[in-house]
Amino acid sequence: MAKRIITISREFGSGGRFIGEEVAKKLGIAYYDKNIIGQIAEKSGLSPEYIQENAELSPKKGLFAYAFSGRDITGKSVEDMVYEAQRNIILELAEKEPCVIIGRNADYILKDRDDVLNVFIHGDMPEKIKRITGLYNVKEKEAVKMMADTDKRRRTNYNFYTDQNWGKASNYTLCLNSSQLGYDRCEMIIMECVK
Amino acid sequence: MAKRIITISREFGSGGRFIGEEVAKKLGIAYYDKNIIGQIAEKSGLSPEYIQENAELSPKKGLFAYAFSGRDITGKSVEDMVYEAQRNIILELAEKEPCVIIGRNADYILKDRDDVLNVFIHGDMPEKIKRITGLYNVKEKEAVKMMADTDKRRRTNYNFYTDQNWGKASNYTLCLNSSQLGYDRCEMIIMECVK
Repeated sequence: MAKRIITISREFGSGGRFIGEEVAKKLGIAYYDKNIIGQIAEKSGLSPEYIQENAELSPKKGLFAYAFSGRDITGKSVEDMVYEAQRNIILELAEKEPCVIIGRNADYILKDRDDVLNVFIHGDMPEKIKRITGLYNVKEKEAVKMMADTDKRRRTNYNFYTDQNWGKASNYTLCLNSSQLGYDRCEMIIMECVK
Repeated sequence: MAKRIITISREFGSGGRFIGEEVAKKLGIAYYDKNIIGQIAEKSGLSPEYIQENAELSPKKGLFAYAFSGRDITGKSVEDMVYEAQRNIILELAEKEPCVIIGRNADYILKDRDDVLNVFIHGDMPEKIKRITGLYNVKEKEAVKMMADTDKRRRTNYNFYTDQNWGKASNYTLCLNSSQLGYDRCEMIIMECVK
């Protein structure tokens, strides 16, 4: 079946978000990333700042925070409520229109649809460091720490909510090393796959 | 740097070998698969039949067979000697000419070269079963067992000799789901990446 939704999972610093945004522009379809935070906030009743910090990443406290965090009377933690709101919005967006969705376990959330192209973008350390030091104006040591922390929180969130392993090839239709292939070629390959 | 060597790792039944062979034909470059068994046999002094059964797969006994198998006076097991012979041949082939190499941990063995495109091909269960039942003239149940056994032995061999995880996206330049993308498109994408 032809693919009309593109999900992009990505390592921090791999340029995956940039590639996804370019693909959406070139295909003339919607692009969903931080711009859905407002909707998640509205749906969950929590603040956009809280969502920004927690909706895609595991708590800084780590995995145990999920397993043992405070539950309400229904057995749901605040994290679960955010996740549920985010999940519903992603399901609605996919139903509504062709789009690119960045992160947020969208590959797993949309697993029952067969019109979804799931992409994972990763890269080599030197290129990722170069990108992060440039984008965030930090030194190499800080860039390495940001990368390790962010990817660890993404992985923890993904593995907890999906029971799959983040970055395992078989979860995705297409995995690309953006350092070796270049951003332009990554975009071209993704577009080739939704033809 | 331009890629002149293509390594193809693949799930059993994903058509990875077929895709690799087609790419080699279309690019007019050498194709190495079972046809290097004779060379490995010569180099290691073991029989081609033994190599066929053991050079890419872990022993049927599983991982412990590696760790605790009999060692000669240098501390090497027979499996290690086969692996060493295979490794040297792959290094020589990559040095000699542009080529496609199927399996045999070639991605890891060639990791110090920057002219290698490492590809992992995987697929969805129904399509893999269909391919195996057709190719090997077996029933579905037998196909599922062949798949589980072969992939387990490939994974065990890979993880043991590379200290990496077989099928983890970041080991490869490109990972493709052949069931969703189709064999033709997989071939086209691979060729696009060595341009």
